[in-house]
Amino acid sequence: MNRQQRVDACRRELANADAAAALLFPSVDMAYLSGFTDEPMERVLFLIVPREGEPIFVAPEMYDEQIRDASWVEDIRTWGDGDDPYALVETVAAECGFTGERLLVDDRMWALFTTELRDRFPDATFGLASEAVGPLRLRKDDAELAALRSAGAVADAASAAIRSLGRDAVGLTERELAGRIETELDSHGGDGVSFEPIVASGPNGAKPHHRHGDREIQAGDPVVLDFGTRVDGYPSDQTRTVVFDGTPPEAFERVHQIVREALEAGVDAVEPGVSAHEVDAAARQVIEAAGYGEQFIHRTGHGLGLEVHEPPYIVEGNDQPLEPGMVFSVEPGVYLDGEFGVRIEDIVAVTDDGSERLNDSPHGWRTESQ
Amino acid sequence: MNRQQRVDACRRELANADAAAALLFPSVDMAYLSGFTDEPMERVLFLIVPREGEPIFVAPEMYDEQIRDASWVEDIRTWGDGDDPYALVETVAAECGFTGERLLVDDRMWALFTTELRDRFPDATFGLASEAVGPLRLRKDDAELAALRSAGAVADAASAAIRSLGRDAVGLTERELAGRIETELDSHGGDGVSFEPIVASGPNGAKPHHRHGDREIQAGDPVVLDFGTRVDGYPSDQTRTVVFDGTPPEAFERVHQIVREALEAGVDAVEPGVSAHEVDAAARQVIEAAGYGEQFIHRTGHGLGLEVHEPPYIVEGNDQPLEPGMVFSVEPGVYLDGEFGVRIEDIVAVTDDGSERLNDSPHGWRTESQ
Repeated sequence: MNRQQRVDACRRELANADAAAALLFPSVDMAYLSGFTDEPMERVLFLIVPREGEPIFVAPEMYDEQIRDASWVEDIRTWGDGDDPYALVETVAAECGFTGERLLVDDRMWALFTTELRDRFPDATFGLASEAVGPLRLRKDDAELAALRSAGAVADAASAAIRSLGRDAVGLTERELAGRIETELDSHGGDGVSFEPIVASGPNGAKPHHRHGDREIQAGDPVVLDFGTRVDGYPSDQTRTVVFDGTPPEAFERVHQIVREALEAGVDAVEPGVSAHEVDAAARQVIEAAGYGEQFIHRTGHGLGLEVHEPPYIVEGNDQPLEPGMVFSVEPGVYLDGEFGVRIEDIVAVTDDGSERLNDSPHGWRTESQ
Repeated sequence: MNRQQRVDACRRELANADAAAALLFPSVDMAYLSGFTDEPMERVLFLIVPREGEPIFVAPEMYDEQIRDASWVEDIRTWGDGDDPYALVETVAAECGFTGERLLVDDRMWALFTTELRDRFPDATFGLASEAVGPLRLRKDDAELAALRSAGAVADAASAAIRSLGRDAVGLTERELAGRIETELDSHGGDGVSFEPIVASGPNGAKPHHRHGDREIQAGDPVVLDFGTRVDGYPSDQTRTVVFDGTPPEAFERVHQIVREALEAGVDAVEPGVSAHEVDAAARQVIEAAGYGEQFIHRTGHGLGLEVHEPPYIVEGNDQPLEPGMVFSVEPGVYLDGEFGVRIEDIVAVTDDGSERLNDSPHGWRTESQ
């Protein structure tokens, strides 16, 4: 689907949702439909997609040229710094014929804007734009899958390069190793990082969202390495837990093996018609059976697309059936407070009859120095 | 003020705003009050500051340890991936005795959360947390000013180093030069970049929010360099427009001089009691008098603190009187479509009797090669 076709599909979803329009704020939904986005900002920059009629940007005038360069959307209404941008939004709403109907706002639109929109459209009811855009973004088309595959391959290559440091990584701080990861991702063709790399050594590995700090990596440390890059706008995200040199803590080897088996069980469960919940359960059962259920403190995975975290969420209670084209992580982990953590993560795409793994770097914990 | 004193002050502001509580989402307001924040996320992670009683975090259980490490707030209620986090929010609300009163939500809270909060608290009315936190953040204390000064000094040092490239910068792509800027900021003691550096060469300079691209810098190109870093969490942000080598376009030298005079006029206007609007007008008048008013297409400046863009906004119609401790940019610009742009920016702090400039790198356009 090109972007105009996506907007057509979005309009059909608006009709299904009984909504008059979607109002998008700079976000991946805006990019997905229009080709343009920017960082969220304190100025009014909306893409208005009415159920009937063409999409319209309402934007600060200094963005006029960037939007024209990046987007196929032709109707761009700009406001200057002295103007009331909401008056322009009201004008567009009147032209499109919606004032008191149901309006869908970008899921990530700031309260700063939604509060004002509710004041300006007191007769409207409000919902979330994901009602209309989410169903489109959930299934990746061939071009999106190709980009996700490429991003996965770059992360795999960087992972191999970092692993090959072996004992040379001992003595580096987590921050320094994160810098090396960024360099490797760039040199293998990635476009920056898809999120701040996680380098969590020793006890820091037990904090599942530790990023990286000034701790020096020591011989025997399990090190959680969780990172990704982007290719053509689509991200990768993979995790390996390695020991660069020396002898890891006594429990480590067994825990690593359990997490590895949980990853395989999760991936093996993936096929069309299976629910997200069942994939979570498949991975979780392995860890629970081994007695570490209480130490697997997060969901098994998250969808991956224009965003690093997006539906489908692979979590208990999510009975959404998997469909071909869905892409998500399987990333079981065990976190032993004060000791170490183990997480291993691959990205998988649902195919017509099973799954395709978008990562193939080694899962083991040994590096060249073991 | 330490963070507990900030929360005390916030509670007084809640009383002034006739609000029962503030609900913060990962944001600078959360960091300002608690010491903890993270990137905005799709999970419920709120800091609830009731008008009466101690602040409470409602957070995913995997964040428990990070919050304890970073924040003085002791009451942390966690939820697991299978739980309903809003049930926990409702429990906390009942304990604190608010259900149907006025609630202030983080200005940057996503619609994903505010929509659900409105469903869960149907009798409440909603406002923005900036009502309570904004007045505190607007005036910087001595520690904040010291950090802002240091961040400004690092940007100045990087600016001098980039300027000294002279003709060696010719042939670099904008992206490559942006990479050099990041390296210089780090090597002078900055903590990363406060925003993606702008390197806008030749006609790209006429797009005021162009970041950087693959265009190679040519002899004679005016190049807009707009960047900053962070020190102790506080940012810098300064802009210079230079010509690395060769002869710039005919109109350039005059335009550069006009923008430079507009900067001086804006900074000269800064003192307590003067309105933000008057500072904008002082800079704008210089550019309008020179016949380029239509080409100065943005406001004159923005506040700078934990955020790179925050109040006070130096813009037409903002009659907020300046007070000692306010910090903001003065950044007039002239943009000649298809030709080049000029923007020059310094950060100023309002003092008891005037202003203090937080940047002192040269304003001129010549480098060593001229």
